[in-house]
Amino acid sequence: MRVYNFSAGPAMLPESVLERAQAEMLDWQGTGMSVMEHSHRGKWFVECAAQAEAKLREIMSIPDNYKCLFLQGGAYGMFSALPLNLSAPGQKIDLLATGDWSKKAIKEAKKYAEVNVVADTSEGGFTDVPKQGSFEVDKDAAYLHYCTNETIRGLEFNYIPESGDVPLVADLSSTILSRPFDVEKHGVIFAGAQKNMGPSGIVVVIIRDDLLEKARPETPSVWDFTQQAAADSMLNTPPTFSWYLLGLTLDWVRENGGLEGMAKRNKAKADALYSYIDGSGYYSNPVAPEVRSWMNVPFLQKNPDLDKQFVAEAAAAGLMNLAGHRSVGGMRASIYNAMPLEGVNALVDFMKDFAQKNG
Amino acid sequence: MRVYNFSAGPAMLPESVLERAQAEMLDWQGTGMSVMEHSHRGKWFVECAAQAEAKLREIMSIPDNYKCLFLQGGAYGMFSALPLNLSAPGQKIDLLATGDWSKKAIKEAKKYAEVNVVADTSEGGFTDVPKQGSFEVDKDAAYLHYCTNETIRGLEFNYIPESGDVPLVADLSSTILSRPFDVEKHGVIFAGAQKNMGPSGIVVVIIRDDLLEKARPETPSVWDFTQQAAADSMLNTPPTFSWYLLGLTLDWVRENGGLEGMAKRNKAKADALYSYIDGSGYYSNPVAPEVRSWMNVPFLQKNPDLDKQFVAEAAAAGLMNLAGHRSVGGMRASIYNAMPLEGVNALVDFMKDFAQKNG
Repeated sequence: MRVYNFSAGPAMLPESVLERAQAEMLDWQGTGMSVMEHSHRGKWFVECAAQAEAKLREIMSIPDNYKCLFLQGGAYGMFSALPLNLSAPGQKIDLLATGDWSKKAIKEAKKYAEVNVVADTSEGGFTDVPKQGSFEVDKDAAYLHYCTNETIRGLEFNYIPESGDVPLVADLSSTILSRPFDVEKHGVIFAGAQKNMGPSGIVVVIIRDDLLEKARPETPSVWDFTQQAAADSMLNTPPTFSWYLLGLTLDWVRENGGLEGMAKRNKAKADALYSYIDGSGYYSNPVAPEVRSWMNVPFLQKNPDLDKQFVAEAAAAGLMNLAGHRSVGGMRASIYNAMPLEGVNALVDFMKDFAQKNG
Repeated sequence: MRVYNFSAGPAMLPESVLERAQAEMLDWQGTGMSVMEHSHRGKWFVECAAQAEAKLREIMSIPDNYKCLFLQGGAYGMFSALPLNLSAPGQKIDLLATGDWSKKAIKEAKKYAEVNVVADTSEGGFTDVPKQGSFEVDKDAAYLHYCTNETIRGLEFNYIPESGDVPLVADLSSTILSRPFDVEKHGVIFAGAQKNMGPSGIVVVIIRDDLLEKARPETPSVWDFTQQAAADSMLNTPPTFSWYLLGLTLDWVRENGGLEGMAKRNKAKADALYSYIDGSGYYSNPVAPEVRSWMNVPFLQKNPDLDKQFVAEAAAAGLMNLAGHRSVGGMRASIYNAMPLEGVNALVDFMKDFAQKNG
């Protein structure tokens, strides 16, 4: 029996994607091999990879003057790759600190450049994002980096930061494909796949052409965006099975209404959960309402001594992985694209029941 | 119908591994989720990862004073990570140039250190390895790097290079698990999984404890061996499905006699193929017999104009991916662990037939 999996990532995948991967496991497209046994340079996999890129471009409306790269190392690896690819030695990098992931990006960027944290919402406990216009971007900065959605605190930018002529770099790991997104306002978008796009082990980098050709000589070749763009992300052996599954997940997004469809689906889920929490009198969420994440919903209960009991009883009811991140405690429901509304409704029913018994 | 896949990597996997992955795709170990939907920090995946490591340690007889890391970026990524982790600024690195992969490692190492190529067999067309004792290692070098098996030219070291007190670093990407190997003579062993251990997307690094704590400050965190060792390779989200499949492949190695079993199996395959080639009067292999690879067998035919025809007719007979690497031409049969003797026998039969018709 399949469960509802509220993991923050790796996360739930559409059942139809898994079923297709299962059916094709020993013989993919009649080739007598698993897709993961194919040479990445063979015509079959090259076509599979190109199709995944074409689907991503179509679904996200990625303009022709952007390259799509499919790399290894996760978003965390890109925290190193970005300064190496985009900043000249001595050039500053601007970042917005809105939670744990942007803080990690800041720490990593400091290895390679002088970092200017242009806004920091840690004093408010990372429950809000800085207001548009409240921060100033250095016009000589290599780029402005922000994280669209902080998975641990559960907050999401409700606007695209204004950076003037400075290229804007967005970490979309937990929001990519969750709703329409204006790629053209960005110089680089990157996202690990393991939340909304597929399994772990592959990270997508979408980069505007004019930002290529700037990599420092010490950039590792496998993370050199220019080299990988020229090699169709096959300078070295790519994570072929993850790439294939990403393609299957994109099929599912397309079949379910594309980004508009995802937005409708995700808004309905988030509305159901937040409105129950706010009206419950037992659960609470500390994030400013206008920036609450559609993807990660942390919540507290009146009696935190019961958190372990909550998580255990929920698991027994087939509602898995609801413990909050160890750094903040409480509970967290990650409700990425693949989570159906039925899963959220089942969670709300469980929460009601639990509150009634223990409130 | 399954085919015999002679791809150089990603390569053939044991059918039983694929069957198990298929059976568990939607519900792994009764958890109601695919293994790739599990959080890497959950008890289920943590146990899966630890078991894979334990199996690798047992099969390869890895001493307790070595750490096993499971990273992203492939062997090519490690060509950058090794100088950053092991060499101090200004310290030289020694390397042996025996083919295309060691040449790539040399090129990448030059980004970070002064490189000393202590032996180079390119003049002979990379058909032999340097003799033991014919090269001198700089006693102040950070390490001596060599590639145990060059997949493109099809040659394999038949000894472990003597490096004195200088740590020895071995790229085992295409020979790991293919026969017993003396880990203890090495400071670091690393290998991409996609030839003998599983799918692409995961690279194993086996490092002696005394070589930790030397990473330069600019080492990307996800490639910082010390940080990853402390975090059980989960500083960031690891490639969970690849790690799981690696574990299943290790089960298969164990069930088939471990490294002794693999060596017996691989020697029988290599003997069958090379002895046919040498006696055929039609096909040839240029590599010195004592260093011929058990894993990658390149061969030429008398009439190279028929190479495309050979590859196409072989494919029609279910013998796939026999084209030689584009840089050397001819044909190449990669016969990693998962290739059964029956596959090699079928290839030899095809080659006989082709030679008779066209010779």
